[in-house]
Amino acid sequence: MTYCLGILLPDGLVLASDSRSNAGIDQVALVKKLAVFEVPGQQVVAVLSAGNLATTQAVVTALRESAGSGAPGQDLHAARSMFDVAQLIGGKLREVIARDGHYVQPFGDPHGTFLVGGQITGEPPRLFHIYSAGNFVEASDRSRFLQIGETKYGKPILDRALTNATTLDEAAKLSLLSFDATMRSNLSVDAPIDLLRYAADSFSARNLATVEKDDPYWIELRQRYAEGLANLVSSIPPPPQWG
Amino acid sequence: MTYCLGILLPDGLVLASDSRSNAGIDQVALVKKLAVFEVPGQQVVAVLSAGNLATTQAVVTALRESAGSGAPGQDLHAARSMFDVAQLIGGKLREVIARDGHYVQPFGDPHGTFLVGGQITGEPPRLFHIYSAGNFVEASDRSRFLQIGETKYGKPILDRALTNATTLDEAAKLSLLSFDATMRSNLSVDAPIDLLRYAADSFSARNLATVEKDDPYWIELRQRYAEGLANLVSSIPPPPQWG
Repeated sequence: MTYCLGILLPDGLVLASDSRSNAGIDQVALVKKLAVFEVPGQQVVAVLSAGNLATTQAVVTALRESAGSGAPGQDLHAARSMFDVAQLIGGKLREVIARDGHYVQPFGDPHGTFLVGGQITGEPPRLFHIYSAGNFVEASDRSRFLQIGETKYGKPILDRALTNATTLDEAAKLSLLSFDATMRSNLSVDAPIDLLRYAADSFSARNLATVEKDDPYWIELRQRYAEGLANLVSSIPPPPQWG
Repeated sequence: MTYCLGILLPDGLVLASDSRSNAGIDQVALVKKLAVFEVPGQQVVAVLSAGNLATTQAVVTALRESAGSGAPGQDLHAARSMFDVAQLIGGKLREVIARDGHYVQPFGDPHGTFLVGGQITGEPPRLFHIYSAGNFVEASDRSRFLQIGETKYGKPILDRALTNATTLDEAAKLSLLSFDATMRSNLSVDAPIDLLRYAADSFSARNLATVEKDDPYWIELRQRYAEGLANLVSSIPPPPQWG
């Protein structure tokens, strides 16, 4: 399983992914699900993957190989908008499924999905969810976060706490709390967490971090949240005897 | 959609269900998903339903009609253990699916699932999850809660806070918090919430309450939890700049 999260804010983007890959519970591995394409000062694009790993790796590798090639409709670095990037990735996904899908189907689901967030000069930061079909939807100030993979356990904290006034650093904290909830309830989502805080108009991916299981901040966050929540729950009186 | 929750504790059982029924978003209704079968002093059995409403109502109505009839293998009141009750309900579910399933399939999923909790004299309280196939699993001190329907949003709070030392009243509070999380993230789960606190060896369902949307305790619970969580999140410092 996988959990990837993208948050679009007035200040920029927060993008995060876990690292667990599994094909059956006896075949597990750690993989990187967040790929960054960067032309410093001009373009930062992050691609987060869920679903069939062979499919999503084929898409990301093809993107990597074509980046900077100048090949029309293939070169991510030549895209003039994030919409073009989303279309390019959706198209690449359709190519891979058309080529491999039929062979993979007897063994499992060949499909994959992506979150694609970033900024290209001349536009504000944008965030897309690319479906298995290769079509996509865009985040906006009315729906600030998009998720793929194991989405439900980590959604309540975002539904409650994320607002249009949330800063990039606060959103990064909420993302980690969302991953904490997911990892506690689903063993097939696991650290390290790749976490990119992209500040609008920075055109740089320097704030990309890998949060390991033993990272002191991550340990403190989980502990303070668990203790605080336990205290909060005890502080609320039990229900009356209605009957 | 539906959310039903059952918790097995040393002190007894907590069972809760929402009331939203929907067949498409333009055909919604409120229904009761928690049915109680009671022989005061001898037997209390609660049956909570999720899935196809016609199927689950057919099962519960058949149980109701046969209760006390003395018909062998049909009479819930004559069951000598909760295991027998689970088997009886699983069998009834198979009957309904065998009779109606073929006709319903072209229009939607005919299946249903149940949580069945209660106590029969001579046994401690027990709790079962009856699958669509009519087979079932039982809760234990290693897996104290079972859920059916929209299970994920309300699971993190239970994973965190429920322990073997949780009292019946505390578990009732946690159940309502679990419903709060679910209702905030999924509009198709809605109040009123039917909530049964069954005290072990009471053989009475007198602590069955219907918690309406405007219930003062419910309003206070949601508000205190939302405020407390917001305060907790703000009290945790944001992540460092790892990069």
